[in-house]
Amino acid sequence: MTHRASLPSQLKLGFLGAGQLARMSALQAFRFGIQVAVFSDRPENEPVQFMTPHSSSGSFEDVSALVEFAKTCDVVTLENEFISSEILQKVQDLSGIPIYPSPRSFALIENKLIEKQTFEDAGIPVTPYQLVSTLEDLTTFGEQHGWPYLLKSSKGGYDGYGNETVRNFDEAKTAFAKLGGDKGHDILAEAFVSFTKELAVQVARNETGTMVYPCCETVQENHICVAVLSPAPIDEKYQKKAQKLAVRAVEAIDGKGIFAFEFFLTNDGEILLNESAPRPHNSGHYTIEGCITSQFENHVRAVLGIPLGSTIMNKPAAAMINLLGTHNRPAETDHLIRALSAKDGHLHVYGKVQSKTGRKMAHYTLLGKDVQQAYQQALSLSKNIEI
Amino acid sequence: MTHRASLPSQLKLGFLGAGQLARMSALQAFRFGIQVAVFSDRPENEPVQFMTPHSSSGSFEDVSALVEFAKTCDVVTLENEFISSEILQKVQDLSGIPIYPSPRSFALIENKLIEKQTFEDAGIPVTPYQLVSTLEDLTTFGEQHGWPYLLKSSKGGYDGYGNETVRNFDEAKTAFAKLGGDKGHDILAEAFVSFTKELAVQVARNETGTMVYPCCETVQENHICVAVLSPAPIDEKYQKKAQKLAVRAVEAIDGKGIFAFEFFLTNDGEILLNESAPRPHNSGHYTIEGCITSQFENHVRAVLGIPLGSTIMNKPAAAMINLLGTHNRPAETDHLIRALSAKDGHLHVYGKVQSKTGRKMAHYTLLGKDVQQAYQQALSLSKNIEI
Repeated sequence: MTHRASLPSQLKLGFLGAGQLARMSALQAFRFGIQVAVFSDRPENEPVQFMTPHSSSGSFEDVSALVEFAKTCDVVTLENEFISSEILQKVQDLSGIPIYPSPRSFALIENKLIEKQTFEDAGIPVTPYQLVSTLEDLTTFGEQHGWPYLLKSSKGGYDGYGNETVRNFDEAKTAFAKLGGDKGHDILAEAFVSFTKELAVQVARNETGTMVYPCCETVQENHICVAVLSPAPIDEKYQKKAQKLAVRAVEAIDGKGIFAFEFFLTNDGEILLNESAPRPHNSGHYTIEGCITSQFENHVRAVLGIPLGSTIMNKPAAAMINLLGTHNRPAETDHLIRALSAKDGHLHVYGKVQSKTGRKMAHYTLLGKDVQQAYQQALSLSKNIEI
Repeated sequence: MTHRASLPSQLKLGFLGAGQLARMSALQAFRFGIQVAVFSDRPENEPVQFMTPHSSSGSFEDVSALVEFAKTCDVVTLENEFISSEILQKVQDLSGIPIYPSPRSFALIENKLIEKQTFEDAGIPVTPYQLVSTLEDLTTFGEQHGWPYLLKSSKGGYDGYGNETVRNFDEAKTAFAKLGGDKGHDILAEAFVSFTKELAVQVARNETGTMVYPCCETVQENHICVAVLSPAPIDEKYQKKAQKLAVRAVEAIDGKGIFAFEFFLTNDGEILLNESAPRPHNSGHYTIEGCITSQFENHVRAVLGIPLGSTIMNKPAAAMINLLGTHNRPAETDHLIRALSAKDGHLHVYGKVQSKTGRKMAHYTLLGKDVQQAYQQALSLSKNIEI
C-alpha cells in the first residue's frame, strides 16, 4: 500500500454502483478536485449518473466490461456487496487498477459463514450461528437456541433481504427452500439475541492510520434502519467496547477504506457483532454534519491513501431520520418547510428518479445538545415530509 | 416571487459560468437531489464540466445560445458579473425561465457608478468617488481627495482587474487610456481610504426571509484576497454595523440569492461600502464548515425559493487561506500531509485542469477557538502546499 502526498486534478475515482452511497462519496471526491466515474448495473438513470459525464452501465458479472471501466480510473471502490471477491480480484489483476477495499479483504466478509469465522478467530463475539445443510439441522438449531431464529443466505443480503425469521419447523423448511438451501446454497441459522440496543460503529483505515467514529444506535423497523442516534444513549463503557471491537474487526480483514460494523448490546451487557459492510453505511450518514470528517470524506481519503480526518463530533448529539418513500410516483420531496427551517437541520435528497413506498429516498439530520431530544425533534420536524 | 415547498428530483439549476463558485454551489444543489447544468464561456474544460453531463459552452453575448440553455433549466443563476443585465433580461424574457439574482437587481450594481448611487440613496456610506470624463477631471479629483487614488472601469472588474492605482497625473492619464476612458467608457475615480481592516459580509435573501452571515475580515495582497478571518477581529459594534449595512444593501436592490458586500473599516471608525457581488464570494468560503448553512447552500436555497438556513458559526472561529497557483503546470496539489492531518482543517480543491501562478486553485479552512490563532495555524499548516 502506498502513501499518497499529492492530488493530481485529473485523478479519477471509480465507483462500482451508482446509488446514494456512491453519490455522497462522490460529493466528497469532488471537494478534493477529483473526477468521478460510475459503473451501474441498473438500466435506469441512477443518482450519480446526473453528477458526472463518466458513467457506464453493465452487468456486475461481466468481467471484461468491469475491466474496461477500471482502466479509465486511477482507483476503484465499492458501494455495495453485489460483486463477488473473485470477480473483483480478476478485474484488479486484468486492469492493473487497485480496488479498495481490496478483493482480499472483501473475500473475508462476503460470505456470512466465513465472515463469522474471521471475526470469531479475531476474538470478536458474534451472534450464535451454524451452517444448516439438512432439514434435520433446522430442527436441531431450534432446539439448541430456541425459536424463533433467523435463516440467512450466506451470500448477499441487504436491508433484511435474504433474511427470514422462522418460528417453527414448517416456517424453517419453507424459508430454507426460498433462500435456495434446496439447491445447495449455503444457509446460515442465527440465534435470536435478546438485545436492548442495536449499535453501529464506522471505522476508516489505510496505511496512514485508523480512525474510529462514535458508537451510534440504529433504530430498525422491519429490518430497515429508520433512524440513527449518535452517540448511542448507553453507558460509555459499552460505546468504548463496541469501538474497540470495530477496530479489531477492520484489522482482522486488513481493511483499507471505510467499514461499518453493527452490534447487538444484549440484555446481559454483552456486545455481539452482527453484520459488517465494506463501504459507507446508512448508520454513518449523520457524520456529514455531525463529525469533523464525514464517513464519505474518510472513505475517499482512505482509498486514495491520504491521511484520514478527525472523527470527533461537531456538536454533542446528532439524530438522523431516513426518509423512506411514501408514494409510488416520480420522486418529489414535499412539505419541507419545517425541516428546512430548523436551526441545525440538514436535508439530503438522493436524486432518485422514482419514489417507491419504503425506498430510501433522502435523510434528515438534526444536531443538538441531547441525543434523545434531537431524535424527538428530528422526528417531529420531518414527519410531514412526503416523498 | 413564489415560495416553493417541494423539490422534484428532476429540478434543474443552471449556472452561467463553470468556475469554482458554480462548482461549490453545484455540490450543494446535488445534496438536495437537484440536477445541475452549466453554460461556460471558456473553450477548456472547467471544473463543473467534470461534475455533470449537462454542460454547454458558448459566448456570454450569444442571446440565442443562452436562451436555449435556460430552456433546459428550471431556474438559472449567476456565478460572475460577466453577462450584462440587458442580456440577462432578454434571456429571461425569451426563455420564460427565471434568473436569480434577477436582471433587475443586477442592473443596479453591474455598473460601478450606478452601484454607488444605489447604495448612497439607501443611506449606505460608500468610498468617495466621481465619474471622470476628461483629463481635467483626473487632476481635480487628485487635488480634492489626494494622491494616490484609484481609477476603475465602471463595468466588469474582478480581483483587481480593471482597477488602477494612480500616484500622479501622468499615471492617471495612462491608466485612463488603458481602461478605455479615451473610447468613452465610463471611468470612476475613487479616493484611497485609510483603513484598519477590510471586511466582508454575505447575505442570503428570498421571499422566505433574510439571513446575514458573520462579519469577517479579508486579507488582501495585490488586490487579491489571500485569507479570510471570521469573525473579524474587531469590536463587535463594527461587526454589527457592517451586517446592518449589508442587509440594507441587499434590500436596496431587492436581491434574491446570496450577495457579498466588502467594506472598509476606516481609521476614524467609519464603515464604508467598497464593492458588492451578486453571487457566492471568496470571503464566504469558510462558511462551508464554519457555519451551520454555507453560503453555497443558502445560495441554492435562496434562488429555489425555499427557506434559508441558519448562518450561525459551528465553532467560535474560522480562518480560510486561498491556495493560489505556485507553478504553471497541469494542476496537482502537493505536500498535503500536514494540512490534511490537522484536526479541524478542511481542504477544497477546485479541479481546474491547469495551474497558473497566482490562480485561485484551492482553499484551506481551519476552525478553532480563537481567530488569530486559527489564522496563524492555517498559514503554517498550508504553507508547504504546492499547486
